[in-house]
Amino acid sequence: MTGPVVSLIALDDLPLVEAGDDLAAMLIAAVRRKNIAPVDHDILVVAQKIVSKAEGRMVRLADVKPSPRAAAIADEIGKDSRLVELVLSEGTEIVRRAPNLLIVEHRSGFVMANAGIDQSNVGGDGEHALLLPRDADASAAALKAALDREFGVDLGVLINDSFGRPWRKGVVGVAIGAAGVPSLVSLVGKPDLMGRKLRVTEVAFADELAAAASLIMGQGDEGRPAVYIRGVGYDGPPMPACAIARPKETDLFR
Amino acid sequence: MTGPVVSLIALDDLPLVEAGDDLAAMLIAAVRRKNIAPVDHDILVVAQKIVSKAEGRMVRLADVKPSPRAAAIADEIGKDSRLVELVLSEGTEIVRRAPNLLIVEHRSGFVMANAGIDQSNVGGDGEHALLLPRDADASAAALKAALDREFGVDLGVLINDSFGRPWRKGVVGVAIGAAGVPSLVSLVGKPDLMGRKLRVTEVAFADELAAAASLIMGQGDEGRPAVYIRGVGYDGPPMPACAIARPKETDLFR
Repeated sequence: MTGPVVSLIALDDLPLVEAGDDLAAMLIAAVRRKNIAPVDHDILVVAQKIVSKAEGRMVRLADVKPSPRAAAIADEIGKDSRLVELVLSEGTEIVRRAPNLLIVEHRSGFVMANAGIDQSNVGGDGEHALLLPRDADASAAALKAALDREFGVDLGVLINDSFGRPWRKGVVGVAIGAAGVPSLVSLVGKPDLMGRKLRVTEVAFADELAAAASLIMGQGDEGRPAVYIRGVGYDGPPMPACAIARPKETDLFR
Repeated sequence: MTGPVVSLIALDDLPLVEAGDDLAAMLIAAVRRKNIAPVDHDILVVAQKIVSKAEGRMVRLADVKPSPRAAAIADEIGKDSRLVELVLSEGTEIVRRAPNLLIVEHRSGFVMANAGIDQSNVGGDGEHALLLPRDADASAAALKAALDREFGVDLGVLINDSFGRPWRKGVVGVAIGAAGVPSLVSLVGKPDLMGRKLRVTEVAFADELAAAASLIMGQGDEGRPAVYIRGVGYDGPPMPACAIARPKETDLFR
């Protein structure tokens, strides 16, 4: 899948992003400040938070009017009814509910806690919530188009977030948007070292890239909302991140 | 959590590993061949397969005598009864069964398909199976001790494998063994950029490292069974990979 050396470079001097900002231009400037000369198949991983902020996905909780259903669920699980309203409006189905936790299938098809709605890094008063991008694959494609045009190359662009998961503690970076990269890489029929046909069918390449980038993005007061990756070889047709979402009917844990 | 540049270097010229090999010595030689001079907190990620092979965890299926229970389950799900016997003997509990699939809790506490037993890259005849290391955290600790002694530094050592997961298609690299690194990094109470207390409690740092290494290990005929990582800063007390296993009673998806 790759050459033997991969570099991850944090774009650590991005200004704070606000609604309406031209995020592509900010990322291009940050790449230039690092003296990076992009080449084909370099990959830029961008944190969901700054994409959402640029796209104006911040919501004032005071503007949210909870439905009776949201109020009932909020009461049951001990959560702000306005947040529950937002989660329900972003999701298509509740997968599990537990005290202070609502796991839903998001419109994108991904299953996640609280529809990915974030109350950290979104203002100090706790009275705002940041929704995921409306269509993170489309956001990634738009960023890719702008960067490709600027640098005259064929880049991969990912948007990542940190998700919890069943069975294992802790959150890990996953891809919620992708452009230019094969989000899933099929190994079906590829021979292994011994010539035996491999049984593993596919690798979630975009998720592994997202996790790698998360390693240096930090989660707290270290603001490194984008990571530039060079040296991970890939081929195969580009595939959006939503291809990773497992359809409910083939999922044993829904 | 880190400085701004991370390098991943594939140790791509390791000889094929066989039972009884001194894996630590082979890894040390491979690090030297890359002209790497280890420094504190560099991290070596080693593929489960070569650890298992060195530890003699290859089993001849002809030597496996399926129990009546294994035979019954094999019949139900359409799998080789000797493989099912191995899966049951490595696992403590069946989490789900489906055609050709047996998801169990492994002795380590991790939930995984087929108890992590691998039939690829383990000989061309399909008549062998490779079990996970007996205690992957202990294997990682032993490798760390040998490498630390040789190079006079404090390294992190991880053993990774590729696992499927609920909700998302494709496999991703995860840590099944760890030494010297905090497998989980707590962010509880750390302020975010806006001074608001972060709600995310912990990051599965070892899993993100494992996924990053998987990116360049390859799965098929590219033999790169170890990856050297430099530049990912970390602190906090070392914690074995088994700390990532979520106890059944706190898991909503068991």
